[in-house]
Amino acid sequence: MHTYAKSFQFLSMRISILNIGDELLAGKTLNTNSQWIGEKVSSAGFQVETQITVKDEEDAIISCINYCLSNRPKYLIVTGGLGPTDDDVTRNVLFKYMDTKSVFDYDYWKILVQKYKRAGINITESVKNQAIVPITGEVISNPKGSARGLKFIKNDTVIFVLPGVPFEMKSMFSESILPQLVMQMKDPILSRTLRTTGVPESKLYDFITTWSKDDKNKIGYYPSIYGVDIKISNKRGKEIDLLVDWIYKNFKNYIYGEKDTNIETKIVKTCIKQGKELAIAESCTGGLIGDRITNVAGSSKIFKGGVIVYSNDSKANILDIDKKIIDKFGAVSKETAKKMAENVKTMFNTSFGLSVTGIAGPSGGSKEKPVGLVYIGLASNKKSIVEKFNFGKDREVNKIKTSQSALNILRKGLVNE
Amino acid sequence: MHTYAKSFQFLSMRISILNIGDELLAGKTLNTNSQWIGEKVSSAGFQVETQITVKDEEDAIISCINYCLSNRPKYLIVTGGLGPTDDDVTRNVLFKYMDTKSVFDYDYWKILVQKYKRAGINITESVKNQAIVPITGEVISNPKGSARGLKFIKNDTVIFVLPGVPFEMKSMFSESILPQLVMQMKDPILSRTLRTTGVPESKLYDFITTWSKDDKNKIGYYPSIYGVDIKISNKRGKEIDLLVDWIYKNFKNYIYGEKDTNIETKIVKTCIKQGKELAIAESCTGGLIGDRITNVAGSSKIFKGGVIVYSNDSKANILDIDKKIIDKFGAVSKETAKKMAENVKTMFNTSFGLSVTGIAGPSGGSKEKPVGLVYIGLASNKKSIVEKFNFGKDREVNKIKTSQSALNILRKGLVNE
Repeated sequence: MHTYAKSFQFLSMRISILNIGDELLAGKTLNTNSQWIGEKVSSAGFQVETQITVKDEEDAIISCINYCLSNRPKYLIVTGGLGPTDDDVTRNVLFKYMDTKSVFDYDYWKILVQKYKRAGINITESVKNQAIVPITGEVISNPKGSARGLKFIKNDTVIFVLPGVPFEMKSMFSESILPQLVMQMKDPILSRTLRTTGVPESKLYDFITTWSKDDKNKIGYYPSIYGVDIKISNKRGKEIDLLVDWIYKNFKNYIYGEKDTNIETKIVKTCIKQGKELAIAESCTGGLIGDRITNVAGSSKIFKGGVIVYSNDSKANILDIDKKIIDKFGAVSKETAKKMAENVKTMFNTSFGLSVTGIAGPSGGSKEKPVGLVYIGLASNKKSIVEKFNFGKDREVNKIKTSQSALNILRKGLVNE
Repeated sequence: MHTYAKSFQFLSMRISILNIGDELLAGKTLNTNSQWIGEKVSSAGFQVETQITVKDEEDAIISCINYCLSNRPKYLIVTGGLGPTDDDVTRNVLFKYMDTKSVFDYDYWKILVQKYKRAGINITESVKNQAIVPITGEVISNPKGSARGLKFIKNDTVIFVLPGVPFEMKSMFSESILPQLVMQMKDPILSRTLRTTGVPESKLYDFITTWSKDDKNKIGYYPSIYGVDIKISNKRGKEIDLLVDWIYKNFKNYIYGEKDTNIETKIVKTCIKQGKELAIAESCTGGLIGDRITNVAGSSKIFKGGVIVYSNDSKANILDIDKKIIDKFGAVSKETAKKMAENVKTMFNTSFGLSVTGIAGPSGGSKEKPVGLVYIGLASNKKSIVEKFNFGKDREVNKIKTSQSALNILRKGLVNE
């Protein structure tokens, strides 16, 4: 992953992250919390100074907090160890570290009792520690769970303590903490992210760099197997919008959405809006495109179904493709892809038929038709098109890139229809 | 994630991990290295004391090394910052920290020049720093890249320094470092991992705890959406094998493999061995089962294809299911699942037909047929069976659990055929 514009001149306020939990150190759980927090605060213009993972043990935690605070960060974000079991020691360690007494919050306990009752679960004594609150320090509400967060101030540093369960932590951080952080920034940093597929990072970089060399936008390029995301950050929103408009003008066919949108959601929404229905004939992707479409809630409104024709026989028998076409041009050919798209459209009686046929690998390639060769077809009521690709030698990479390109061809087809 | 047997009495040797890189702190890259190392050394019986991520900056790195060594771990594993660019400062920082002079390794430089030539890449001046080696300290070879590793000894701690690129780091760690670590253990810890699906963690736990209460096995339970992995560790291999045999005897239908095996690979291998062919009719999974089967290289030998019948019409028209059956029992019913399996088997002329039909959610459920209700059918030349499940309310969870259960039913069908 490359960020061509690495230096971020307006970074200043420093943050440290402390993740508490034996399971993180032993590699039983991947620490996605620190990445998520790092991404959020960096986007907002903060700099992460250090990230530490420490075991569920009083002395070790206190030693790490001391080390973090010795660098005098503006904020210390602590996650993990607020649950009800014996090894969740974070709450008591923090009370001790902050030298604060605690009290039992009867009102919150009543809420917890009600909550457990509604869920039909017996509340146990161990849950009681979740209702213990410090005398000095604030409580941060947890809309998705029972372990609330804590806020303390020690010397120059504000300490936030959050549960380690990712979806609870994320919602608390986004709702209660990030807004406080952003308010501290004199000039908060704005950003927009464009999601592209089918265009190389270097091409985007060369074009965009030339155009934007005089503006103050910071541009990050994040390539993945699905395409390249372009994140444009600036204190001035107008400067971002100008560049984004220009990128849209030049790379329209490659941009499928902004922020977190995925291409399948975009397609399902567009189909619903336009009253279009869809059928898919998959060969080398083996069902992956159908899987992605049906990950979208509501896809049953527009997705009628498809066929996975993984053998030459099934292409001929199930999809009624003339054996002569397969014999003459091959199962992986422009002609077969076109027929697959047209015939699956007829078979399911839909507005669009999408097809893919290719050589997934690792074997099965030849000199004329190497592993990675893929044809993607799209048939609508107006016309049929076929595009040719070569995605290289890795089987799973091939499947994913094929699915992404096929979905983008369908997306473009829907826009132009 | 729970490990019921948390305390690991024979843990003693402590390890710290230091990951160097701005991109990790800013959340641009997920730190998978620390999890991977954590898992490897924990499995070998070491305890990870602390894990720190620090930016590419001399003072910060030295401060973190000092902090790590203050806990006097047996080993400190450092990753990242050994590349050729300006922000890769790790090598020089370590030389300074260890107070060692360095020399230019002409022999290695010649190897690098040859390597680049073969790959058709121009070697640049910046690559030269990869041939600089310390006077005091050892060099660790890198079979997959150009940045070699380093080994130093400081007070009671052995420091290993490795590149941050995961596949380089992993191969160097597995080949050069882990063996050194394991040799230090007087009694290395052995382990076996059984992969189960379709049986709750609590049931496994209750059964296994009762049986194994007198042995010295350490048993870890790792539940995921795909099932529960059971890892049994012990210094004595025989004691592991005894318990594993007993678990096989009692949970045969639920165990689909050991170690890293996945269920789809198991199925493809078994089908190839037995000369069996497969077709699939998917409704609620939308292509996911076909996708998983075709992720396995060589699956085209046994997977003929399938249909995704996402609407009632397509179930009737494409799969030739009597509309009366769908009207009487519903599209999500035992009867429809059975017919789907039988008809897709006939359609593709295979030894097995596998089918799934269910309500993926989030809407579309009723009191009698709630979201999450799934029927899975399997038709062979001998008989047809249908199993009923309820996987709850989340759409993607539903799809994955359905695919896993369907594949396990097929796996059992192959074993019993």
